[in-house]
Amino acid sequence: MQDRYFSTDPAQRAAARELYASVKDLPLICPHGHVDPRLFADSDYQFGSPVDLLIIPDHYIFRMLYSQGISLEALGIPALAGGSRTRDHRKIWRLVCENWHLFRATPTGIWLRDELADVFDISLKLNRENADAIYDAIDEQLQGDAFRPRRLYERFNIEALATTDAATDGLAQHQAIRDSGWGGRIIPTFRPDAIVNIDGDGWRENINRLREESGAAVVDYASYIRALEGRREHFKAMGATATDHAALTAYTECLSASEAEAIFQRALAGQATDKEAARFRGHMLVEMARMSSEDGLVMQLHIGSWRDHNPWLYAHYGRDMGADIPIRSEFTKNLKPLLDRFGNRRDMTLILFNLDETTYSRELAPLAGHYPLLRLGPPWWFFDSWLGMTRFLDAVVETAGIYNLAGFNDDTRAYPSIPTRHDVWRRVCADWLAGQLVRGFIDEEDAHEMIRALAYDLAKQTYRLDK
Amino acid sequence: MQDRYFSTDPAQRAAARELYASVKDLPLICPHGHVDPRLFADSDYQFGSPVDLLIIPDHYIFRMLYSQGISLEALGIPALAGGSRTRDHRKIWRLVCENWHLFRATPTGIWLRDELADVFDISLKLNRENADAIYDAIDEQLQGDAFRPRRLYERFNIEALATTDAATDGLAQHQAIRDSGWGGRIIPTFRPDAIVNIDGDGWRENINRLREESGAAVVDYASYIRALEGRREHFKAMGATATDHAALTAYTECLSASEAEAIFQRALAGQATDKEAARFRGHMLVEMARMSSEDGLVMQLHIGSWRDHNPWLYAHYGRDMGADIPIRSEFTKNLKPLLDRFGNRRDMTLILFNLDETTYSRELAPLAGHYPLLRLGPPWWFFDSWLGMTRFLDAVVETAGIYNLAGFNDDTRAYPSIPTRHDVWRRVCADWLAGQLVRGFIDEEDAHEMIRALAYDLAKQTYRLDK
Amino acid sequence: MQDRYFSTDPAQRAAARELYASVKDLPLICPHGHVDPRLFADSDYQFGSPVDLLIIPDHYIFRMLYSQGISLEALGIPALAGGSRTRDHRKIWRLVCENWHLFRATPTGIWLRDELADVFDISLKLNRENADAIYDAIDEQLQGDAFRPRRLYERFNIEALATTDAATDGLAQHQAIRDSGWGGRIIPTFRPDAIVNIDGDGWRENINRLREESGAAVVDYASYIRALEGRREHFKAMGATATDHAALTAYTECLSASEAEAIFQRALAGQATDKEAARFRGHMLVEMARMSSEDGLVMQLHIGSWRDHNPWLYAHYGRDMGADIPIRSEFTKNLKPLLDRFGNRRDMTLILFNLDETTYSRELAPLAGHYPLLRLGPPWWFFDSWLGMTRFLDAVVETAGIYNLAGFNDDTRAYPSIPTRHDVWRRVCADWLAGQLVRGFIDEEDAHEMIRALAYDLAKQTYRLDK
Repeated sequence: MQDRYFSTDPAQRAAARELYASVKDLPLICPHGHVDPRLFADSDYQFGSPVDLLIIPDHYIFRMLYSQGISLEALGIPALAGGSRTRDHRKIWRLVCENWHLFRATPTGIWLRDELADVFDISLKLNRENADAIYDAIDEQLQGDAFRPRRLYERFNIEALATTDAATDGLAQHQAIRDSGWGGRIIPTFRPDAIVNIDGDGWRENINRLREESGAAVVDYASYIRALEGRREHFKAMGATATDHAALTAYTECLSASEAEAIFQRALAGQATDKEAARFRGHMLVEMARMSSEDGLVMQLHIGSWRDHNPWLYAHYGRDMGADIPIRSEFTKNLKPLLDRFGNRRDMTLILFNLDETTYSRELAPLAGHYPLLRLGPPWWFFDSWLGMTRFLDAVVETAGIYNLAGFNDDTRAYPSIPTRHDVWRRVCADWLAGQLVRGFIDEEDAHEMIRALAYDLAKQTYRLDK
Repeated sequence: MQDRYFSTDPAQRAAARELYASVKDLPLICPHGHVDPRLFADSDYQFGSPVDLLIIPDHYIFRMLYSQGISLEALGIPALAGGSRTRDHRKIWRLVCENWHLFRATPTGIWLRDELADVFDISLKLNRENADAIYDAIDEQLQGDAFRPRRLYERFNIEALATTDAATDGLAQHQAIRDSGWGGRIIPTFRPDAIVNIDGDGWRENINRLREESGAAVVDYASYIRALEGRREHFKAMGATATDHAALTAYTECLSASEAEAIFQRALAGQATDKEAARFRGHMLVEMARMSSEDGLVMQLHIGSWRDHNPWLYAHYGRDMGADIPIRSEFTKNLKPLLDRFGNRRDMTLILFNLDETTYSRELAPLAGHYPLLRLGPPWWFFDSWLGMTRFLDAVVETAGIYNLAGFNDDTRAYPSIPTRHDVWRRVCADWLAGQLVRGFIDEEDAHEMIRALAYDLAKQTYRLDK
Repeated sequence: MQDRYFSTDPAQRAAARELYASVKDLPLICPHGHVDPRLFADSDYQFGSPVDLLIIPDHYIFRMLYSQGISLEALGIPALAGGSRTRDHRKIWRLVCENWHLFRATPTGIWLRDELADVFDISLKLNRENADAIYDAIDEQLQGDAFRPRRLYERFNIEALATTDAATDGLAQHQAIRDSGWGGRIIPTFRPDAIVNIDGDGWRENINRLREESGAAVVDYASYIRALEGRREHFKAMGATATDHAALTAYTECLSASEAEAIFQRALAGQATDKEAARFRGHMLVEMARMSSEDGLVMQLHIGSWRDHNPWLYAHYGRDMGADIPIRSEFTKNLKPLLDRFGNRRDMTLILFNLDETTYSRELAPLAGHYPLLRLGPPWWFFDSWLGMTRFLDAVVETAGIYNLAGFNDDTRAYPSIPTRHDVWRRVCADWLAGQLVRGFIDEEDAHEMIRALAYDLAKQTYRLDK
């Protein structure tokens, strides 16, 4: 349906259609996401079964099925301790299709439907009756050469795609992509959470890995900082333009050198308290901003997700099982120490993301509408949805304008869903701007320049992919 | 007006009309409310005057009049200490009608107008000129046999109606309904707040009542718990399928047996602190969930109302005088101890309600979209309104779907307003789904199944009224 | 464009047009703002250049340009320490016009466009090409007699305009306006923040000024209170009908006389702590309400702006440089001590404003829908915008009705923008009520009375300008 999702008001729909048409074929800028670089390192990479591709790795899907009493084993998810699980992927697919009504009016439901239609050319509705036919149609296509990730990269018209990589990652896959001579622009993103969160599981192992990768001693705070700087240098040499940081809150603080050293040593000794961990994390956000001020990497900050909220699930299945739950966020006070140091810098960028929509109009838009440092990331996670995006634009544009936004990023590990996700964003923006246009807030020239900025330019510029 | 409240977009309006038509005659499921069971125990129950029925018991109405400087005495509300008040109900009615403009664009205004039209067949506008005519028309009908509550139950096409009853209630009225042989399904709901809130007025008297009703000693924490379990058993035998719990916050905690005992003993001695009362309340929520896991009663939790915020009003007129004011709510952290124990249970249900809309998209929908235990109650109190319901659907459905919702409940003590309240919900859902349909998010089959679920099935299933 | 900003739904647009037409020519009530009274004291007051009028004093404009890396010096803003800045106003104007795309879809952009069209009769779009032509056209008109502030007062059809004045202000400009015999109603508003905030810069100097203006010793808490009462008396004699108070939070508290005295003495000695300052501020809010209960001045409370959030900017350019950032607000608990004392008063009024939209439906509307004391101010600052106003009406009217609102105030220092700001409010209200009308929530009579109340009556009555 060509006009899908647009307002049914005739004037607005016509304007939305025209605006959308002007950007729908622009290349995709994918500056933040979680696609595995192995997809591109191996020119013959195959996705496996439809369930391997679409169900087992997608916690958006299985969290909803789980909420309605379907076990993870029945969906093929392995428990850490092993044990029985359904291995018949056709059976899993049927179970998903029988319960697909759960996804009515959800972005997950819309993405999969649009992905089947646009990427797989399957227009059957997901339900019990069509389950086998859809399974077969997907499966057949996944076998074909057209579904190798590099081929899809070209078909999807991707211009650049950033992965997210641990600070201790050797970037061997990225090196392999480069060595292959293939022309796609796949770049890493530096994510140091696991070596910054001194209270995280396995922090000391991660420090060991940091030692190995950096080939230097990491014995005190100063050498730790040097090692991090070295890793950033390596990521940058491999094409990275950005870093990514996740934290429960936006708390920042500037520790003195001796305080930082003392906490670091206590962490190495396994003795740091929760409070020290929080202070160290806040300090390291400022320190990472300091590094960005020197090496030019764009900094991303994702705030407000209580990871692994369900201890039973975590114990039995591990991380990222759909049990991350948002909490209330605060930026005005928490981010002040960082902003006091870097807020007025025009030559660096910090992009803010969070899961508490109340911050949009109250804190984020006023902050971004003042501080040169700041840009606002697109609505994240649960809010990467039609209504979520609409509320975001409603809440922030009047105060921050659109030129303090960072455009769109798909933030997905579901590679074949990327075009669909960008398409929804482009449609939302077209419809929203059409509403502004037909009511007389903006004119045609404004609307056309704004849709292009939102669909393409802002992401490219903000993440320095135009360099 | 047949299409009242629907969007004026022709496509959406037509779709809304059709969806609404498919559910408007379905029976009413009323799984949570505050209708007095005496209405049904006495087959000849009479409502009194129009003011007795519509004004004096309705704090939605008199709070607004009070906010504009009209005294409660002028509205016939008795002060605790007695004293003069208007006893001429026609005069009170005139005063209300003269000030009815205050209710323009409010749900209270809409309910009363629709109730007059649909239940009393009165289409006059409420104002000074029409006051007497309306009074007379209502009054005449209230005298007639058609307005006995049991007759209305049938006319309203109610399938089941749950009252809310103190844990210490002997349920004599419910027994009388059963004994009468009348076929209506009126069931109690177990509400133990008054014996759980150890800092509440009259807690020790309530414990005495608990002793009397349960016919057992309540001398320590263990006997207290046994007495509560016994009361639940009795409620269940009388048809109850659910419990209801109100608290200022969603704080939960698991006390050790000795901590619980110590606090309970201090409470019996009148020595428990505020902090201990809060901890005990949080502990008892977990304990009530434990009982639900055993006896199968569905648990409801209403969070975030600061009861009796106005001390002068409370001192002079008592409870429930329209001065309950919401506070900010939090679930992700507060509910975790309870969820850690019961969140993964598929065979029990906890329904969450609250008055802080920011929790909808940030916490409630993500929680309900993951934990099998949870369902979301409909928008409560001030948000039982056209825009309140629309914002609720906008905020939760994309993340939780509709199948993690508990459908509608009218939560009212105003018995004759029940059809109107359900009608507004059914219209909101029809209009909201019509918007989804005409924009292409869902198709006709989806829309029809969803409207039926929202209007009828979800409430019936969630509250186990299909058993 | 006659129908600008209205919904494009034909029925709603027609209704909005009619409602708007019924109020667009009503006089403007401006009960709260920051226009300098000198504009009216001097009958020949001239505004200076277009940049003097429109850019240099308007932090709404330069904050956004600053956020995109344009220095304040380039916009002609003087640094405290002096130093170079652009003094060529035509060059500044060009820079602003070249960057005017930043204001697309913002209220600032809309106000300036509408002001140019409606006040200056300039319909050119602000951009690089038109910069000089627009500059010249504004400049020429500013020279003419038609642009003296008193002439504009009449042309704008202002009925009353309140300025905001420090409690220590001698009101000489206001006296000069009175002495001039000119018939405009320009009245002061009593703003005591600088002598209430004992932790503010220069508090003791302000106390000295208070001594001078009040001509009495201010040596202890009692004489301080008497001096404040005396100043209020003077303001009232000069026509004031209201006071204004700003605070980071709505915290209130009733100190004992001895506590108040002790903190006051410590403040005089420069020894008060932050905590004491916060308690004193909370106490003084209650005390100011007590004074209002006696002298009848309407009390306004503006909550939630972290002033001068950017220390570098504050140090270099001073106050009000576009770096005030909102924080989360709370009223239910914070305002209780004040409400416990005065909440039930029908003969006085407290108007609440804040920058945290989450309070609208959760706290403000329920509070205003109960307490006779309270009225809700219009959406403030960043929310004085089309979508901000719409969200406000959506969030509060269902619970508080419109008769607990205080109508509109423009809250601006940009005098020539006043008609535009009122026009946007009147259009928003017309469109919002039209939506309610065509969907059947209200009827024609309701809509016409409501639009008049919102556009004119409520502001006049709430601020006692009908006296």
